[in-house]
Amino acid sequence: MAQPRMYGNIEIFSGTGNLALASKISEYLQVPLSPREIVTFPNENIFIRLQTSVRGQDVFIIQPTSSPVNYNIMELLLMLDTVKRASAGRITAVIPYFAYGRSDKKDQPRVPISARLLADLITVAGADRYMLIDLHAGQIQGFFSIPGDELTAFHLLSDYFRPKQLTNTIVAAVDLGFAKKGRNFAQKLDFRMAFIEKRRDPKDSSVHALAVIGDVAGKNVLLVDDEVNTGCSAAEAVDILKKHGAADVYFSFTHAAFSPDAIELLRSLPIREMVCTDTVPISPAVRERLPNLTVLSVAPLLGEVIRRVHEGESVGKMFNE
Amino acid sequence: MAQPRMYGNIEIFSGTGNLALASKISEYLQVPLSPREIVTFPNENIFIRLQTSVRGQDVFIIQPTSSPVNYNIMELLLMLDTVKRASAGRITAVIPYFAYGRSDKKDQPRVPISARLLADLITVAGADRYMLIDLHAGQIQGFFSIPGDELTAFHLLSDYFRPKQLTNTIVAAVDLGFAKKGRNFAQKLDFRMAFIEKRRDPKDSSVHALAVIGDVAGKNVLLVDDEVNTGCSAAEAVDILKKHGAADVYFSFTHAAFSPDAIELLRSLPIREMVCTDTVPISPAVRERLPNLTVLSVAPLLGEVIRRVHEGESVGKMFNE
Amino acid sequence: MAQPRMYGNIEIFSGTGNLALASKISEYLQVPLSPREIVTFPNENIFIRLQTSVRGQDVFIIQPTSSPVNYNIMELLLMLDTVKRASAGRITAVIPYFAYGRSDKKDQPRVPISARLLADLITVAGADRYMLIDLHAGQIQGFFSIPGDELTAFHLLSDYFRPKQLTNTIVAAVDLGFAKKGRNFAQKLDFRMAFIEKRRDPKDSSVHALAVIGDVAGKNVLLVDDEVNTGCSAAEAVDILKKHGAADVYFSFTHAAFSPDAIELLRSLPIREMVCTDTVPISPAVRERLPNLTVLSVAPLLGEVIRRVHEGESVGKMFNE
Amino acid sequence: MAQPRMYGNIEIFSGTGNLALASKISEYLQVPLSPREIVTFPNENIFIRLQTSVRGQDVFIIQPTSSPVNYNIMELLLMLDTVKRASAGRITAVIPYFAYGRSDKKDQPRVPISARLLADLITVAGADRYMLIDLHAGQIQGFFSIPGDELTAFHLLSDYFRPKQLTNTIVAAVDLGFAKKGRNFAQKLDFRMAFIEKRRDPKDSSVHALAVIGDVAGKNVLLVDDEVNTGCSAAEAVDILKKHGAADVYFSFTHAAFSPDAIELLRSLPIREMVCTDTVPISPAVRERLPNLTVLSVAPLLGEVIRRVHEGESVGKMFNE
Amino acid sequence: MAQPRMYGNIEIFSGTGNLALASKISEYLQVPLSPREIVTFPNENIFIRLQTSVRGQDVFIIQPTSSPVNYNIMELLLMLDTVKRASAGRITAVIPYFAYGRSDKKDQPRVPISARLLADLITVAGADRYMLIDLHAGQIQGFFSIPGDELTAFHLLSDYFRPKQLTNTIVAAVDLGFAKKGRNFAQKLDFRMAFIEKRRDPKDSSVHALAVIGDVAGKNVLLVDDEVNTGCSAAEAVDILKKHGAADVYFSFTHAAFSPDAIELLRSLPIREMVCTDTVPISPAVRERLPNLTVLSVAPLLGEVIRRVHEGESVGKMFNE
Amino acid sequence: MAQPRMYGNIEIFSGTGNLALASKISEYLQVPLSPREIVTFPNENIFIRLQTSVRGQDVFIIQPTSSPVNYNIMELLLMLDTVKRASAGRITAVIPYFAYGRSDKKDQPRVPISARLLADLITVAGADRYMLIDLHAGQIQGFFSIPGDELTAFHLLSDYFRPKQLTNTIVAAVDLGFAKKGRNFAQKLDFRMAFIEKRRDPKDSSVHALAVIGDVAGKNVLLVDDEVNTGCSAAEAVDILKKHGAADVYFSFTHAAFSPDAIELLRSLPIREMVCTDTVPISPAVRERLPNLTVLSVAPLLGEVIRRVHEGESVGKMFNE
Repeated sequence: MAQPRMYGNIEIFSGTGNLALASKISEYLQVPLSPREIVTFPNENIFIRLQTSVRGQDVFIIQPTSSPVNYNIMELLLMLDTVKRASAGRITAVIPYFAYGRSDKKDQPRVPISARLLADLITVAGADRYMLIDLHAGQIQGFFSIPGDELTAFHLLSDYFRPKQLTNTIVAAVDLGFAKKGRNFAQKLDFRMAFIEKRRDPKDSSVHALAVIGDVAGKNVLLVDDEVNTGCSAAEAVDILKKHGAADVYFSFTHAAFSPDAIELLRSLPIREMVCTDTVPISPAVRERLPNLTVLSVAPLLGEVIRRVHEGESVGKMFNE
Repeated sequence: MAQPRMYGNIEIFSGTGNLALASKISEYLQVPLSPREIVTFPNENIFIRLQTSVRGQDVFIIQPTSSPVNYNIMELLLMLDTVKRASAGRITAVIPYFAYGRSDKKDQPRVPISARLLADLITVAGADRYMLIDLHAGQIQGFFSIPGDELTAFHLLSDYFRPKQLTNTIVAAVDLGFAKKGRNFAQKLDFRMAFIEKRRDPKDSSVHALAVIGDVAGKNVLLVDDEVNTGCSAAEAVDILKKHGAADVYFSFTHAAFSPDAIELLRSLPIREMVCTDTVPISPAVRERLPNLTVLSVAPLLGEVIRRVHEGESVGKMFNE
Repeated sequence: MAQPRMYGNIEIFSGTGNLALASKISEYLQVPLSPREIVTFPNENIFIRLQTSVRGQDVFIIQPTSSPVNYNIMELLLMLDTVKRASAGRITAVIPYFAYGRSDKKDQPRVPISARLLADLITVAGADRYMLIDLHAGQIQGFFSIPGDELTAFHLLSDYFRPKQLTNTIVAAVDLGFAKKGRNFAQKLDFRMAFIEKRRDPKDSSVHALAVIGDVAGKNVLLVDDEVNTGCSAAEAVDILKKHGAADVYFSFTHAAFSPDAIELLRSLPIREMVCTDTVPISPAVRERLPNLTVLSVAPLLGEVIRRVHEGESVGKMFNE
Repeated sequence: MAQPRMYGNIEIFSGTGNLALASKISEYLQVPLSPREIVTFPNENIFIRLQTSVRGQDVFIIQPTSSPVNYNIMELLLMLDTVKRASAGRITAVIPYFAYGRSDKKDQPRVPISARLLADLITVAGADRYMLIDLHAGQIQGFFSIPGDELTAFHLLSDYFRPKQLTNTIVAAVDLGFAKKGRNFAQKLDFRMAFIEKRRDPKDSSVHALAVIGDVAGKNVLLVDDEVNTGCSAAEAVDILKKHGAADVYFSFTHAAFSPDAIELLRSLPIREMVCTDTVPISPAVRERLPNLTVLSVAPLLGEVIRRVHEGESVGKMFNE
Repeated sequence: MAQPRMYGNIEIFSGTGNLALASKISEYLQVPLSPREIVTFPNENIFIRLQTSVRGQDVFIIQPTSSPVNYNIMELLLMLDTVKRASAGRITAVIPYFAYGRSDKKDQPRVPISARLLADLITVAGADRYMLIDLHAGQIQGFFSIPGDELTAFHLLSDYFRPKQLTNTIVAAVDLGFAKKGRNFAQKLDFRMAFIEKRRDPKDSSVHALAVIGDVAGKNVLLVDDEVNTGCSAAEAVDILKKHGAADVYFSFTHAAFSPDAIELLRSLPIREMVCTDTVPISPAVRERLPNLTVLSVAPLLGEVIRRVHEGESVGKMFNE
Repeated sequence: MAQPRMYGNIEIFSGTGNLALASKISEYLQVPLSPREIVTFPNENIFIRLQTSVRGQDVFIIQPTSSPVNYNIMELLLMLDTVKRASAGRITAVIPYFAYGRSDKKDQPRVPISARLLADLITVAGADRYMLIDLHAGQIQGFFSIPGDELTAFHLLSDYFRPKQLTNTIVAAVDLGFAKKGRNFAQKLDFRMAFIEKRRDPKDSSVHALAVIGDVAGKNVLLVDDEVNTGCSAAEAVDILKKHGAADVYFSFTHAAFSPDAIELLRSLPIREMVCTDTVPISPAVRERLPNLTVLSVAPLLGEVIRRVHEGESVGKMFNE
C-alpha cells in the first residue's frame, strides 16, 4: 500500500556553507533549490528572507558548520528561525559537517560541552529533526532530544578502496579515539590493524611522543580518521609510520575541514592517495594543489535519505539490513 | 537590617568583546577580572577554560555582541555553557550592546525575528539573568523569559549636554522609530522637537526622500539616535537639517557600532560634537580620527548595577525614585 | 501539483468575544461555526464543552480579548485547553484584538510585561499558532515562540480613504509611538505628515502639554492610531489640531476598544469621519450614537488567511508580493 | 545549629482578592504588607506596580481566586510576572481558595481540565512554589510540577466542634466525593457516618433524586463539605436529612465561595450552626445576614506555614508528627 | 467527506507486559503486531530493537505497567525512546493498567506523587498521547500535559450484570474512595447502595475497624472496586457484609493486579462470582484456581479506540452521545 | 574570606542500592544518613517517605543503578520526586554506577539511546545536579542539561599500582573503546601499551576473533577496563594474552557490576590480582570467592566532593591543578 505523505512538498534551502553540495543534492532529487536571500548587513547582522512560501512544507536546510564556523552556525540558526516562523510543516537541519564535535565532554574542569550547546541551539531555533554525517563521537546523537539520522561515509570510503585490491596492507588509526572505527575499516577490507599512540610529556604537556603499535614494516598502510583540520596529526602519523618502515601510505577521512595551512602540509607528505568527501566545500584551487586527493560526493547519500525521510521510507534499509 | 546575600562572591569574566569596558567595571567594583582562557583553534572552534572555580558564585559575563558580531555571540554562548557546567550559583549575561536588535519583528513575510532567537540562545546556553543597555526596542526585554535589567545611557548623555547650556536648540530624531525617546531628550533638556521623515520611492524602494518636520532654521540641532552603524542615516539627517538652515549640529547616541566605512563618513560631516558611550569598544585610532567625538563610559553604571544585583539592593532607586 | 493538506477539516469555534465577526468569517469560508457550549456557572467558573469531535482537525478559535477583557482571556485559555485535550490536529488562536498590548516593556521598575505573559499563557494552554491584527507593537510577535501571522488592517483602512481623493491633507499620528506607522499612511496616500507631541510636566506627571509639529493650518488632517479606548488622546489631538487651524479632521484606527465613556466623548468631537474595523464588536446602539463612524470588516481578511493557512498556501502573497 | 536562610526577607504582597486575610497574616508574622499599586485602566487592563524593591527577597503573594474569579486569576498571574521580572529570590503563590477545582478531570468528552490549566498558568507566570488550602481533590497537587504545600482547615474545623461535646451525632457528607474526608471528621470526633447519595434521572439528567444511607433518625447531624457555592446541595441535604428525622443539623465547610443567591438560601435553612473559614472574604453584611455562621480564620495557619517555609523549618511537624 | 489521515499506517508494538491482550487488539484491528526484539542483557539492561521501519507511522505501544511493575515501566520508557528516535509520526502509549495510581497526592508530608512522576516520565520519553483504562483517580488525566483518552470498563462490567437480572441486590463500594463510581453502577443497574467504612484505630494506625452503612441484610450485594491487589480489602468487605447478613456476594473490578498471595485468598472467599477484565494478564493457572472468575476482554474497546484515534473519528461517540 | 553557603545543611539519603558505600560517605563527612522509609508494597509499587524535614537543605541522594537495575532506577526517581516535593533547597543525584551507559548512541537503526533517556528521567524527576563516576563514555555528561561532576577512580586505581613497582609490564585495554583511557594508565605508570582487537565474523556476527596488537610475550600485563559484567570479555582477553606469552596478568576496573555467573568465571582465570572499587556493592560472599580481588573505596572521593560542592569549593583542584 502506498505510504501517505505527512507533509507538503520537499523544499531544500541551502545556506552559504556548501552550495556545491546542496546543488548536487538538488540534482539527485530533481527538486530545485528553493530561492532565499542571505545578506550580511554592514553591521554584520545576517539577514535571511525566503523567496517562496514554505507553509506546511517539508523543509530541509543544508548547512555544514565548516569555515567560517561561527558565521555558518549563526546563519543556520537564523534560517531555522525564519523557516519556523514562516510556518513550515517540518524542518530538518542537514548538517553534513558538525563543528565543535571534539568538545563533547568535560575532560578537564571548567570547559564547555560545546557540541551539546550546539545541539540545544539548533533545537531551540526550530529544527524538528537533524541529519548529520560521521560525528566525531556517535554519542553526540544523544545530545539531541529531537529525532534524526546520523549517516556515515564509511561505506562510500571503504567501497572506494575495495576495488583497488591493495595487498599487504594494514589499517592504522591516526588517533586512539578512532581505534574502534578504524577496526571497522580493517574488518570490512579484511586487513590487519596497527595503532598510533600519542603521549604527553609529563613535564611539558605541549610536547608529545608517538609510538606505533603493531607491525607496519614493509607494509602499505591505510591511515584512517574522521576529519582533517591542520593536518598535523596526519603528518606526525605518516612520519612515524615511515620511520617504522611503512611502504605506501593511503589516507581516508570524511571531513576535509582544512585550516589554511593544511593544504601545503598535506601536499608535502609522502601519501600516495588521500580520499575524502565533499561534506565541507573543497575549492578547485585546493584540488589543484592536492592532485593526490580524491573527493567522493555524499550528495547521493544525503539526497536518497532526504527522499526516504520525506516519503516515510526506511533509512536503515539502505545500510544494514 | 543587613540584606543577606544569596550567592557567593562576585566573579566577573570578560569575553573578548570589550575588555576595556570590563576592566573599568572591575575597577569600579574593586573586584579583579576572573582569569579565563579563550582560544580560537585552527579549526575556528572557540575554546573556553575558566582558570578559577566559580562553584556557587555570582558570575557576571561581560560581552557586547558588537563586531565581530557572530563570533562574539558564539563566544558569549560558550562562556555561558562553561560557567553553567562549572556549577556557578547564578549567571548574569551583561551585554552592553545587543546585536540583531533591529530584527525584532516580521515586517515582511518569511524573515526571522533574530532578536528573539538571540534571547532564546542566551537562555538555553545557561543565563539566569540579563543586563542590557538601550535596546533598539524596549520590547526586546519581553523576548526573554528570564528576569533582567535594561539600563539606559539616557541620563549619562542628557546630563552631558545640560551644563553646556545650549540655547536656541531643538532636538531631532534621526529616525521616526526613535521619536518617543527623542521626546524624552527634548523634555529633559527643555528643548522643542523636530522630526526627520524618510520615505521610500513607491517605484524603487532603494531610493528614498527625506523631509524635516518642525522648524530648524537658524537653530542648533541636537540629533539623537540609539546607535550608529554606517553613519549613512546620520549623514542624510545632517544634510537635510543643514539644507533647512540648521546652525550647529550636535549628535548623541549610545552605541558606536561603527562599520569600517563609518569613521571617514562621520569625520566628513559638519557636526560640532558627537557624544556616545563605550558599550562598544572604540579604538584609539578611531578616537584620533574623530576628534569631535566624546566617549562617556557606562562602566560606573554597569558596575553599580552589578553591585546592587549582587547585594539584592534596588536598581530602580538609581533612576526614577 | 495539488498541495496535500496536513490536517483534517477546518473547524471554527467562536468564543463569546465577537460572535458577529466569527459569523462573517464562517460565511466567507462557507464553513459553519462548530457547535460548543460555553456556560458560566454560579461560581463564575467558565465551562466549555465542544459539541462535535475535533480529533485530528484544523481548529481555529476566534476570540478577541476585548471587553470583558479578563473574562475573555480566561475563556480563550479554557477553549484552548479543551480543544487540545480533545486531540485536535492543529490549533490556531485567532485573536483579532490583543489586550495588554500596551504593557509590552518595563519602562519603569517593577511592572509586568503583560503582553509577554499573555503570549505565554496562550502557548501553555495549547495554541500551536496565533493570528493577530495590528498589534500595538509588532515586537509582540516575538513574545511568541510558536509561529503565527500578524495581519494588518492598514490596507483596508488606507484603501478606504484613497477613493475619497482628499486634497490638501496631512497625516498626523495621535501618539509619537505611532509615528512610523503614520508615515506608512502618509506615504501610501501621498500626503505630508505632522506630529503631535505630548510632554509631561516635570513637576506633576499627570499634567501634560501638547504641541503640533508640522504645518496643519488650513489643511485637512487624517488622524491615525491603532486603537481607541477612552478617546481622550484623540480628543486632545483634535483639540490642538483645531487650535492650530486644521480644517476637516478624519480619524482612522483599527481597534474600537471603546471604554463606556468613549462614545459620548467621540460623539462630541469635531471629526468629519471616523473609520475603524470590527475586530472588537461594536453594538448597533454605539453605531447609532456615532453616525460618523464607518466600520470596515476584517472578516474577509481573516477568512482568506484561515483558508490559506489551512491549505498551506502563501499568506505573504496577499500583501506584499 | 541555626538554620541558614536561603533568601532575603519575607515580603508579603496581597492582591485585591482577600485583603482582610492578608492583613491578619501580616499581623501574625509581624511583617507589614508590602506596598503595591493595582489599578484597572479604563481598557480593563490590570496594571501592577510594586512600590518596594523585591530583589532577592522571599516573596509571598496572597490571592484567593474567589469572586471575581477570572479577574482575580489574571491579577494573580500579572503579580507573579511583575515579581519575577523584579528579580525576586523566590516566589510563593498563596492561594487560599483555588477556583476551577471541580474541573479536575475529563468525565465527559471534550471538556477542559481547568484546574490543570490553572496550575500551568501559575507556573508559567513565575511561581516557584504554591500554598493552597483544602483543594476540591488532593490530586490537584500533582497538577503542579513546582513544589508546594496543601494545607487543611480540617483540624481548625474539627477542633471547633470537639469542645461542643455534641452527643448522639452522626457525620454526613454532602456529596459522595467528600465521603473519605467526611470519614476523617467522623473518626476524629468519634461519630458514626451517613451518606447522601444523589442520582440523576436516566431520562432527564437535570432531575435527580437523593437518598440517605445510614440511620439519622433522631440524631444530630454534622454535615460536612469542602466549599459552599449556591448552597443548593446543602439545602437538598438538609431537606432530606430532616425528612429522615434528623434532629439538629450543623454544617462545616472550608470555603465560603458564596454566589449572590446563596446567602438567602442558607439563611432559610434549618441549620443550627454553620462553621467555615475566611479563605474567601466574607463581608460584614453577609455575616449579619447569617447570624448562625461562625468564621474561623486561617491566618495563623498560613502565617505560621509562611514563617516555616521562609525559615526552612518543617511544615509537616505542625500536623502529623 | 472522507477524513484525511494525518499519519501513516497503524503500527502496534507490544511490550512484554500483556502479549495476550496485544494479540487480541491486533486481531480486532486486523493489523499484525509489529516485530520487535526485547532482550534483557546479563547486566539487566533492557535492549529494544524495532524490526520494521516506523518512519512517519502512527505507532501504538501496548504495555500495562503491571507486574513486574518497575521492569515494565522501564521497558515502556525505552520503547518510547526507541520509537521516537526511529522517527515515528505519532506515538500513543497504551497503558491498560497504570501503576502507582494510588500515589496520586501528598496525604502526608514528604511522600512522592508517583503517578505524576510516571506521567512525566512517559512524556519525556516521547509519548505524544496516552490511552488508559479506569485510573484509580480520574484526576491522573490532568497529570499529563499531552492529550489522551481515559477509557472505562464500566460499561463492559455493568453490561455483564444487567442480563443476569439480579434481584434484591445492593451495590457496595469496597472503599469510600470508590463511592462515586459505585454510585454509577447502582444507578445504571437501578440498585440501591451501601457503603463500607474503614477506620484506623487512633492509637495504632495499623489496626482498623469496618462498618457497613446501609442495609444489606438478606440482600445480594454487588461489591465494586477498581482493582484487586492482595485481596485483603475485598476479603474484609465480604466478611463484614456477610456478618451483616448479606446473601450472595458478587464482585466486579477492572484490574486483576493480583499479588502472589491474592489467588488463594480470593479462592477462599464466599463470593458467588467475580468479574474483571484482561488489562493485566491472567494466567491459565490463575483462571483454573479461580473458577468463579469471569474475565472480560478490553481488546475490542482498545482496538476500536485505536482505530478511531488513527482515523480521526470521535471516541466520545462510543460512550455518551 | 569565608565562602557563604547557599543552601542549608547537608542531608544524605541513601537508596537501597549501596548502603555500605553511603555509610562510608556518611562517616567521611561526619554527617549521619538521613532517615527515610523505603517499602515495596505487595503491588510492587515502591513507597518512599522521608523521616526528617529537608526544607531548604542541600540534599544528596546516593544510589548506584546497579542490580536490581530497573528497580534501583525507579527507586532513585521516586526519591528525587519525594525530595523535590518536600521542598529541598538543592538536590544532587549521586549515582556512583550509571546503568545503560553502553546504550549511548544509535549504532544500528531503531534502537534507543537509553543513557540519554536515563539522564532525562533523572532531570524531570527533580535532580538539580548529578555526580557520577567513570561513565562508559564521557559524552554522557552532555546528555544532561543540568550541571554536575563526573569523577574518576583512575587516580585511585593507578595509585594502587604505582607502589607495586611492577617491572617489564605493558598495559592492555580489554576493548578498543577503552584504548584512550588505557593509554592514560600506561602514561601515568610509564608502561608501554598493547591492544586487543575483536572482530565479528562477517558471516555470523555472534562469532568473533581476537588479536593482540603489540608485543606482550614474556611481559606482565595490566589489563584495564571500566566495568566488568559477565567477565567474558576479560576471560577472552586473558586467554589471548596468555596465548601470546604474557607473564603475570593484573586487572583493574572501576565498576564490579558482576552478573551472577561472573564470579565463578573470574575465579577461574589466571589473573594475579584484580582491583576495583565499591561503586557497586560487593558482598562478603563474593569477596571470599575472589581472594585475589582488592576493593578500593570511592567513599573518601565522593565524600570530599560532596563537601566541596556543599561548601562551594573547587572540585577541579582535587584532580588536575
